[in-house]
Amino acid sequence: MIFSDEYFMLEAIKEARKAFEKDEVPIGAVIVCDNMIIAKAHNLTESLNDVTAHAEMQAYTAASAAMGGKYLTGCTLYVTLEPCIMCAGASFWTQIPRIVFGATDPKRGYSNIGNRILHPKTSVTGGIYEFECAQLVRMFFQKKRN
Amino acid sequence: MIFSDEYFMLEAIKEARKAFEKDEVPIGAVIVCDNMIIAKAHNLTESLNDVTAHAEMQAYTAASAAMGGKYLTGCTLYVTLEPCIMCAGASFWTQIPRIVFGATDPKRGYSNIGNRILHPKTSVTGGIYEFECAQLVRMFFQKKRN
Repeated sequence: MIFSDEYFMLEAIKEARKAFEKDEVPIGAVIVCDNMIIAKAHNLTESLNDVTAHAEMQAYTAASAAMGGKYLTGCTLYVTLEPCIMCAGASFWTQIPRIVFGATDPKRGYSNIGNRILHPKTSVTGGIYEFECAQLVRMFFQKKRN
Repeated sequence: MIFSDEYFMLEAIKEARKAFEKDEVPIGAVIVCDNMIIAKAHNLTESLNDVTAHAEMQAYTAASAAMGGKYLTGCTLYVTLEPCIMCAGASFWTQIPRIVFGATDPKRGYSNIGNRILHPKTSVTGGIYEFECAQLVRMFFQKKRN
């Protein structure tokens, strides 16, 4: 499974777990270029008091710094939850060619609006470790309710 | 005109001019709460090498810090160009009740996708100093072509 989508999604899940431990909605992301992880991030909206601090947004910024260029050419984003409209809108500007996500987000996922908000160069694969990714989020909200 | 939409849009235009002087696409934003400007920002995508560094995104982050809360309750965003999908998607998360923009962006403006990506609490006014806001962007691209 080396360098497979599953391999990199497990890295994104590790990031999501870090968010969970910080009492943040547990979403994690990594960006991969030439089979190397060039950015890792997890949701920090509570810690940073900033609704824009989604895992993906931070990962895009970090990956651009690592790449030394604005465009994430040749990169893949792995994220545990389907990106929201903000994060999908940001992916358009990055021109990232591939997005792989774990669980769908029927309420806030970009696909509610349709695929046309993504860059025409961007292809999407969903459902990698879907159960594990969704389970983390479910556990988080269950803990909140108790 | 004190504390009118025109007054605050002129402040956003000042920010856009700062971007112009830095050879950035000239878009500026301010966020106002109780007639006080709590955040000012301009597009810095080139300087920061980061496609997410739109004026609005930086303004949301700065305003949240100024407010000491994630939600921009009681605030108004003034921005010289109609927000893109990323920035409109971010505005959803801030729950900002009002957005005022200058020029429309027929190519990349959020309204291409429809109003439903905004928070139901958010109202929008467009066309404040439309000519001046658009003129700055036109001048920028004219300069680029020469």
